[in-house]
Amino acid sequence: MLFFMLKQLVFGHKNPDTDAIVAAIAFSHLENQLGENTEPVALGKPNDETKFVLAHFKQQAPRVVTSVADEVKAVMLVDHNEAQQSVADRDKVQVTKVVDHHRIANFDTSKPLYYRAEPVGCTSTIITKLYHENQVEIPEKIAGLMLSAIISDTLLLKSPTTTDDDKKVVQELAEIAHIDANQYGVEELRAGTNVDDKSAADLIASDAKSFTMNGKSVRVAQINTVDVNDVFKRQAEFESAIKDSLTTNNYDLFFLMVTNILDSNTEALVLGTPTEPVETAFKQKLSAQQRLALPGVVSRKKQVVPPLTAAFDETK
Amino acid sequence: MLFFMLKQLVFGHKNPDTDAIVAAIAFSHLENQLGENTEPVALGKPNDETKFVLAHFKQQAPRVVTSVADEVKAVMLVDHNEAQQSVADRDKVQVTKVVDHHRIANFDTSKPLYYRAEPVGCTSTIITKLYHENQVEIPEKIAGLMLSAIISDTLLLKSPTTTDDDKKVVQELAEIAHIDANQYGVEELRAGTNVDDKSAADLIASDAKSFTMNGKSVRVAQINTVDVNDVFKRQAEFESAIKDSLTTNNYDLFFLMVTNILDSNTEALVLGTPTEPVETAFKQKLSAQQRLALPGVVSRKKQVVPPLTAAFDETK
Repeated sequence: MLFFMLKQLVFGHKNPDTDAIVAAIAFSHLENQLGENTEPVALGKPNDETKFVLAHFKQQAPRVVTSVADEVKAVMLVDHNEAQQSVADRDKVQVTKVVDHHRIANFDTSKPLYYRAEPVGCTSTIITKLYHENQVEIPEKIAGLMLSAIISDTLLLKSPTTTDDDKKVVQELAEIAHIDANQYGVEELRAGTNVDDKSAADLIASDAKSFTMNGKSVRVAQINTVDVNDVFKRQAEFESAIKDSLTTNNYDLFFLMVTNILDSNTEALVLGTPTEPVETAFKQKLSAQQRLALPGVVSRKKQVVPPLTAAFDETK
Repeated sequence: MLFFMLKQLVFGHKNPDTDAIVAAIAFSHLENQLGENTEPVALGKPNDETKFVLAHFKQQAPRVVTSVADEVKAVMLVDHNEAQQSVADRDKVQVTKVVDHHRIANFDTSKPLYYRAEPVGCTSTIITKLYHENQVEIPEKIAGLMLSAIISDTLLLKSPTTTDDDKKVVQELAEIAHIDANQYGVEELRAGTNVDDKSAADLIASDAKSFTMNGKSVRVAQINTVDVNDVFKRQAEFESAIKDSLTTNNYDLFFLMVTNILDSNTEALVLGTPTEPVETAFKQKLSAQQRLALPGVVSRKKQVVPPLTAAFDETK
């Protein structure tokens, strides 16, 4: 008897980061070793960091798709599950497998499925375990790719989402890939934080969220870098872009976090008013250059928005 | 440094079957071996089959709870995920782990979690794998309990939901528990199908669904048994209960499946009108006792409703 395995596509979330691209490649390879017929694809082009990673390990970028139901009846998801992060026509196909490290929301199926989620720092950490559980050897190239994904998601094992599992897997993958994780990791993260060829207007818009604090409209943007001077040597250009944004969008205050992801420190640039709550929140005056030093701060959600909101609320 | 692990409750779905009760016991034991502090509980009392299983392996029934937020901040779910099948105040606690073999629906979390689902016949099959992956020995009693859950969910490996994994695990657990799976399994299933001490009215109501077929209201009920004569020796009582149900609920037709779960055959009792579509669907006349022989039929959803619906649709 001949079996023809129906082909399935494997992909990560929209606006893919390194883990979204790499986990698709690594999980597709594993599934194919186990007898499935899968192809890794992506819901967008690789970012600068991922381009560096793919080039380093001589891996082609996965084909970009915007729909799947026109070519397959079933798919496997990695590094995401929520509908709004997934392919637009996902409701037209069956989801047979999911490997993820996020919360579960906006996700339902009509049939039983394989679902593997763990609260670790990176999907590739879980996929490494799946290779072991299924006794499939991890090829050197895929070890290097998965190592890169964990370095990316955990900022070289320094982010607060890092677990012991991630640390153990990084060590193991580095050995298989013959890579010095720290040295390579700094190169990789630096490749993803190249700000030199981007305009200040693009950089302050690419990762920004708005908040209402005691009636004021506050914008908090974040730029990751390996050297905050890459941003501050262009401070005049950033101030101009921020002033444009304040006017155009009627923001009261603009709070730009420039975060050094290697030493986990942030330098902030603050324009607009009021600035008193900012100074109260972080217990220091703005410098003559409108800047704040925030050692140890990396998280907008956990370390900036709560104290800022509290200080605004205290304002009469 | 001393760690005080916050206590968590582990439980299966409402109206618990053997897997819902046993998977909670087995998963709680595993988690405790791995350093968690958990207690298995249940959202209802054990049914007849589960009582037999617990008595056989000298295992106390888990404490029944109807709410959890009053005693813990976090829970683990087994054998279900959908909100309507779970504890009423689940939205007030964090779900940290799920082990299940059903579709995912009406389930979301605000934080990442451990989620392990596989499309196999029984949650206890997955939990057996988790013992192995974590290199925790399965105690003889827990092996017997999990074996019983798989026998229950797969009708002794005969239901169409049975997978190779279930078969492999049954063999392994039977060895650890020193049990003859077939001989014990028949006893267990028989214990769960004791109809003698229940009224016909209760038996035709406990597993029944309504369907509209070409404008007619059709009720399809199912009673599992190891001997269809346990039902048909009381046919007059069942006819009376069915006639009451037809009148009270304005059903046009009542189709009672009496299914021998050991040989996977059904004998149906059919009252009400029209009976022609029934005879068309199953290519035979109703007997003088209003009965149909349906060899090989066990599934209402897959083997009864589709041909019956098609036959009604052909009726002018």
